[in-house]
Amino acid sequence: MNYCSDCGAPVTLRVPEGDNRERHVCSRCGTIHYQNPKMVVGCIPEWEDKILLCRRAIQPRLGLWTLPAGFMERGETTRDGAARETLEEANARVQVGRLYGLFNLPHIDQVYMLFRARLLDLDFSPGEESLEVRLFAEREIPWDELAFHPIRETLRLFFRDRLTGDREMRSGDIVRDTGDEPRLQ
Amino acid sequence: MNYCSDCGAPVTLRVPEGDNRERHVCSRCGTIHYQNPKMVVGCIPEWEDKILLCRRAIQPRLGLWTLPAGFMERGETTRDGAARETLEEANARVQVGRLYGLFNLPHIDQVYMLFRARLLDLDFSPGEESLEVRLFAEREIPWDELAFHPIRETLRLFFRDRLTGDREMRSGDIVRDTGDEPRLQ
Ligand SMILES: [Zn+2]
Ligand SMILES: [Zn+2]
Repeated sequence: MNYCSDCGAPVTLRVPEGDNRERHVCSRCGTIHYQNPKMVVGCIPEWEDKILLCRRAIQPRLGLWTLPAGFMERGETTRDGAARETLEEANARVQVGRLYGLFNLPHIDQVYMLFRARLLDLDFSPGEESLEVRLFAEREIPWDELAFHPIRETLRLFFRDRLTGDREMRSGDIVRDTGDEPRLQ
Repeated sequence: MNYCSDCGAPVTLRVPEGDNRERHVCSRCGTIHYQNPKMVVGCIPEWEDKILLCRRAIQPRLGLWTLPAGFMERGETTRDGAARETLEEANARVQVGRLYGLFNLPHIDQVYMLFRARLLDLDFSPGEESLEVRLFAEREIPWDELAFHPIRETLRLFFRDRLTGDREMRSGDIVRDTGDEPRLQ
């Protein structure tokens, strides 16, 4: 951030009065421009014993598989956002259920929220951001071709919990982008 | 948003290629400036059968009571943020537990996430943004002097669930700022 989005004047990085960390503050109108983490919301769409995955048609991780998920938009709830992403990426209609996975990625300022969801019909197809959309049984999941760490963790935990019947929400911190196992809380 | 925070040129509101909603797009450098909801993270700090509340020293809702909570900052996890807010507003140290309340406020683009927490000692005091910090038993909660709707809902559900021993996470949408009962999911 270099300029004030309100008035166009240059901003400076300083600690505002009563605050305890540096912010971008406008040199002319004084507006403090806060920057905050973003939410990525998505679904684990289920049909019988299968899960719907999308193969990405866009960067990053083009060609790899993921659960339908994306940045939450203004004016919607987390569940609204999860359903919208599923419709956009897979042309799939779901009934969104309980929150299953909450993953923090503090190194990129993202929080993933993945909801359990029931696919309402089999009339799905690739959206603009997907190359392919398919149902996978557990043994068919392309574990080595999954796009994002929180998606892999969510699927791993989901199948484990399905086996044991555990209905707890799962949460964890993913402190680096690659290599690390997330520290599960 | 009127100006590009990267280059200072005016922005225009239009639908970028491949997108389906209006964004602020820079007329010079082409940067798309996305705007997303923000997370408010906080704690329900418990000591024996009591809950810690803070009386606000700042606007909005100056003089009213709230759970320690505030905007999640960059570089932290949701639990980090909840603990930090509790330290800043009440000089109180907590062990943060499971997520208890998840409330969407789509009319103001906020998502509240309130965690159960165990107060580690009784050495708390008002932080800069608090007039007063106190432990309350259920019968002492100042129900008519609570600052925010999601805080009131969280406390109402918390005491109900404590009675029945229910350990489920609670979530709901608060669709208007005042008057409405939240639609609980
Ligand atoms: Zn300005
Ligand atoms: Zn620009």
